[in-house]
Amino acid sequence: MGSTQSPPVTFNSINPKVLKCEYAVRGEIVSHAQRLQQELQTKPDCYPFDEILYCNIGNPQSLGQLPVTFFREVLALCDHPSILDKSETHALFSSDAIARARQILDLIPGRATGAYSHSQGIKGLRDAIAAGITARDGFPANADDIFLTDGASPAVHMMMQLLIRSEKDGILCPIPQYPLYSASIALHGGSLVPYYLDEAAGWGLEVSEVKKQLEDARSKGIAVRAIVVINPGNPTGQVLAEGNQREIVEFCKKESLVLLADEVYQENIYVENKKFNSFKKIARSMGCGEKDLSLVSFQSVSKGYYGECGKRGGYMEVTGFGADVREQIYKLASVNLCSNISGQILASLVMNPPKVGYESYESFTAEKNGILSSLARRAKALEDAFNSLEGVTCNKAEGAMYLFPRLHLPRKAIEAAKAVNAAPDAFYARRLLDATGIVVVPGSGFGQVPGTWHFRCTILPQENKIPAIITRLKAFHESFMGEFCD
Amino acid sequence: MGSTQSPPVTFNSINPKVLKCEYAVRGEIVSHAQRLQQELQTKPDCYPFDEILYCNIGNPQSLGQLPVTFFREVLALCDHPSILDKSETHALFSSDAIARARQILDLIPGRATGAYSHSQGIKGLRDAIAAGITARDGFPANADDIFLTDGASPAVHMMMQLLIRSEKDGILCPIPQYPLYSASIALHGGSLVPYYLDEAAGWGLEVSEVKKQLEDARSKGIAVRAIVVINPGNPTGQVLAEGNQREIVEFCKKESLVLLADEVYQENIYVENKKFNSFKKIARSMGCGEKDLSLVSFQSVSKGYYGECGKRGGYMEVTGFGADVREQIYKLASVNLCSNISGQILASLVMNPPKVGYESYESFTAEKNGILSSLARRAKALEDAFNSLEGVTCNKAEGAMYLFPRLHLPRKAIEAAKAVNAAPDAFYARRLLDATGIVVVPGSGFGQVPGTWHFRCTILPQENKIPAIITRLKAFHESFMGEFCD
Repeated sequence: MGSTQSPPVTFNSINPKVLKCEYAVRGEIVSHAQRLQQELQTKPDCYPFDEILYCNIGNPQSLGQLPVTFFREVLALCDHPSILDKSETHALFSSDAIARARQILDLIPGRATGAYSHSQGIKGLRDAIAAGITARDGFPANADDIFLTDGASPAVHMMMQLLIRSEKDGILCPIPQYPLYSASIALHGGSLVPYYLDEAAGWGLEVSEVKKQLEDARSKGIAVRAIVVINPGNPTGQVLAEGNQREIVEFCKKESLVLLADEVYQENIYVENKKFNSFKKIARSMGCGEKDLSLVSFQSVSKGYYGECGKRGGYMEVTGFGADVREQIYKLASVNLCSNISGQILASLVMNPPKVGYESYESFTAEKNGILSSLARRAKALEDAFNSLEGVTCNKAEGAMYLFPRLHLPRKAIEAAKAVNAAPDAFYARRLLDATGIVVVPGSGFGQVPGTWHFRCTILPQENKIPAIITRLKAFHESFMGEFCD
Repeated sequence: MGSTQSPPVTFNSINPKVLKCEYAVRGEIVSHAQRLQQELQTKPDCYPFDEILYCNIGNPQSLGQLPVTFFREVLALCDHPSILDKSETHALFSSDAIARARQILDLIPGRATGAYSHSQGIKGLRDAIAAGITARDGFPANADDIFLTDGASPAVHMMMQLLIRSEKDGILCPIPQYPLYSASIALHGGSLVPYYLDEAAGWGLEVSEVKKQLEDARSKGIAVRAIVVINPGNPTGQVLAEGNQREIVEFCKKESLVLLADEVYQENIYVENKKFNSFKKIARSMGCGEKDLSLVSFQSVSKGYYGECGKRGGYMEVTGFGADVREQIYKLASVNLCSNISGQILASLVMNPPKVGYESYESFTAEKNGILSSLARRAKALEDAFNSLEGVTCNKAEGAMYLFPRLHLPRKAIEAAKAVNAAPDAFYARRLLDATGIVVVPGSGFGQVPGTWHFRCTILPQENKIPAIITRLKAFHESFMGEFCD
C-alpha cells in the first residue's frame, strides 16, 4: 500500500497556539542532557563528568531525597487495604499510619480507592484539607471550595481556560515567571501582560510597576482579567512581606482582577525573618470576604519538604466567585472525571500531617526538619558560591527551591553566543552542561529585563554533593570568563 | 471593606467555549442523584429505595467490584519500597508481586517513584507497554510512540489541542458518542462533524455514511482533520468486524484523516463471535505503515476487567506523524510535566499481567475471568430485561460496559416532558431515578437520531443485585407507560 496523500497533520497545519507555547524547564537543554546521559551509559569516560545533575527542575526525589515515611506508609495501605487486617502488617507499618489509612478508607464511598471520585475530589479528603487550611490561616476554609487536581498544573490550565476568551484577554504575570504560566496563556490564546520584579530589591514586587503595566495593557485594548503572584517566588525565591501582600489584595479589589496565588512553596522558607502568609489569610485579616476578592490559591504535593512530584497531587482553593461561575469550574473539572486518588490522599496528608502524641510524630518531624534545614544550608552554600564568582550576582533564596543568579557576561561571550544564534544565557548554560554535567535553565525561559542574563538552578542536589558541584561550577566559570575576557 | 467593584468574572464574561461544553455523564441528573443520596443519609425512609445505584458512569469499583490483587500488591510495594527487604513482607505479598515491584523500581531512575518522570512516562514502563502491544497485535510497537497520561481523557484533549485551529476545523465523531469528544471539541473551539451509527444494524458503522458527512462538512468549508472511532463502542457496545475496520483504514488513508481510535474497552468483549482487533494491527496487516496512516490509539486502566478508574492511568500510542509534529506533541505533554507514576506502573501491569508459571497466575486468572464472565452475564440479563419491556428495544452489548436501549415513548409522555421543558429521555431518566434510585444518562447526552430517545445504563451493578434492579426497572417502566398511555 503506497503513500499517495499528503499527511493529515504537518508542522504547518498544527494549531498555531501549540507552536507558540514554550516550556523551557523541559526544553532544548534538557533534551541535550538526556542525550549526554545516554552516551555516558555506553561510554562512561566520554565526558569530563560521570553523571548528569538535573538542576533544571524542582524534582527533589530524582536527586536522592527520600520520601517521607509516614506518607508512603499510608499510601501503600490505601493501595492494598486487604493487608490492614493481617498481623504482620503491624511489624511493617506504624500504628498511626494504619489508623490513618483506616480513617481515609472510611471517608471513601465503598472504601473504593479504585473508583472515580466526585469531580472535585473525595469529600472527606477535602474536609481534611479545609481543616488544614483553617489551622494554617486562622480563618475558615470550606471543602466545597477545594478542587483536587493532578498537581497544580491542571488547576492553572483550568483557570486560564475559564478566563481567556481571545488574545484581547490579558493575564498579569511576574517576570521572571514560572513558564507554566506563559505556556498556559499561549495555549489558551491569551496575552501575557508582564510586570517586572525588582532584582535590585531582592526581586521585590512593586505595585506601582504592576499598575503601570496594567494601564499600559488597558490602553492597548487588553481586558486584564487576573494577576499571577508566585509566593514564595519561582524562579526568584523571594518571600513576600505581609504589607506587600495587603497592597496586592487592595489592588486586585480596586482593579477588579482575579488573584491567582501560586502558593506551592508555602512550606519552603529558609530565612528567620520571613514567614509564609497565604493571600486568603491576608485578605480575610483585612476584612476582605467572599464578595470582595476573587482568589484562587494553588497548592501541590510536589513541593514542600515532601517533594512528591511523581504522585501528581494538588488542589486549588477557589473563593469569591458567583455560584454560576463556580458551576462552570465544576463542569471543567468533571470533563476529566477526577484527579488520581493517591494524589488526593497525599494532598490531605500534607495538609494534615501527624500530630504530637502519635507514634510517627517524632520520626516524621525529624525527617521534615532534616530536609528543610538541609535545603536551607544548600541554598546558602550555592548562593555564596554564585556570589563568589566574577561577574555573577545572586539574590538570596528566602524560599522555594531555586537560585536565579545574574550573569554579567563579557562582550566577547555575548558575541560568541550571537555567532551561534543562541541567547547569551543559553550559550552559557550549554557550555556549563558540556563541561560539568550540570543542567540549569537559561533565564530567557522565565523572562528577564532585556539585556540582562540569568539562569535558574535548583538547590536540590544532595548535600554531600554540593562541595564538588561548587568546585566544578567555579572551575567552569573561571575558564569561561578567561576564554571570553575582553 | 465594602464591595465597590463588579466581580472580575461573571457568567457572561467566561470563555464562551467553556459555556458551550457539556458533559452529560456528570451532568444535571447526577447532581440530583447526589442530593437524593445526601437526603437518604439523614432520612433513610424518605424515598422508595435505600440506595442510589450509579449506572451513569463506567466506574466498576464504586459499585463493589474488587481490585485485582496482583496489581494492588505491586502498587503498594512501589509506594513503600523500604518494606521490600523485610521478612514479614513475604507473608503479606505474593513472591511474583515482590519480584515485579523490584523489577519496576529498577526501571525507574534512582528508584524514585516520587520523582517527575520523562514527559512521556518512564522509559522502562513504556518498553513493557510496547512489548504488550507487540504481543497483542503481532506487529512491533515502539516505546517512543507511547505517551503515558492520567487516564485517556488528557490524551484526547492533547490531540484535540494539536489538531483544532478554529471552528473551521472539524472532527468526525460517531453519534451516539462518548461526551468526552463533544466536550473536548467544544473546549478547543472546533466543529463536531457527526456520523450516525445504524441502530437497526446493531449500531453498525457504515463508511458510506461517514463519507456523506465528510463531504457535507467539506462543502460547508470545514477542514475535517480526524475521525474518532470508539471500538468497542461507547455508549453503544458494538464490536467492529475486521472487514469494517479495514474499510475505515482505507478511508482515512484516502481522505487524509487522522484516525483517533478509542480502544479503552479492548479487554471487554462478551460474545463468542467477536474479537477485539486494534486498528494498528488491522492497518499493519494491510501493509499500511508509518507513512500511510496517522493513527492514535487510546488505552486506559479505568476499563477492562481491572476497572481502576481512580488510578488515572492510560496511554496513547502515536504512529504515522512526522518528527516535527511529534516534537510538538512532546511539548504539550511536557507542559504538564508527567502523568502520575502509580498510574504509569498500573498501565505497564495491565499490558503485561502475570504469565503462566508465576505464583499469582492462577489467582490472577481466576479474578480476571470471574469479573469478565460476570460482566457478560450481567450484560445479557439487562439486555433481556430491557427487551422484555413494552416500548423498549435494546441492542446486544457485544463489548464495553453499557447498554443503550431505545425508548419508544407514548405521545403523552413526550408532551409531559415538553411541558416541563425537558427532553423526553431526560424526563424518563429523572422519573426513573426518583422512583428507583437508579441513575442512567439520557441519550441526548450522547447524541441520537433526532426524534429517537435512549438512555445509557452501565452493566456494572454487582451480580447479586441485578434481579432486584430488573424488578424495580420493570415496575417503574410499567407504571410510567400506564401513566402516559395514549
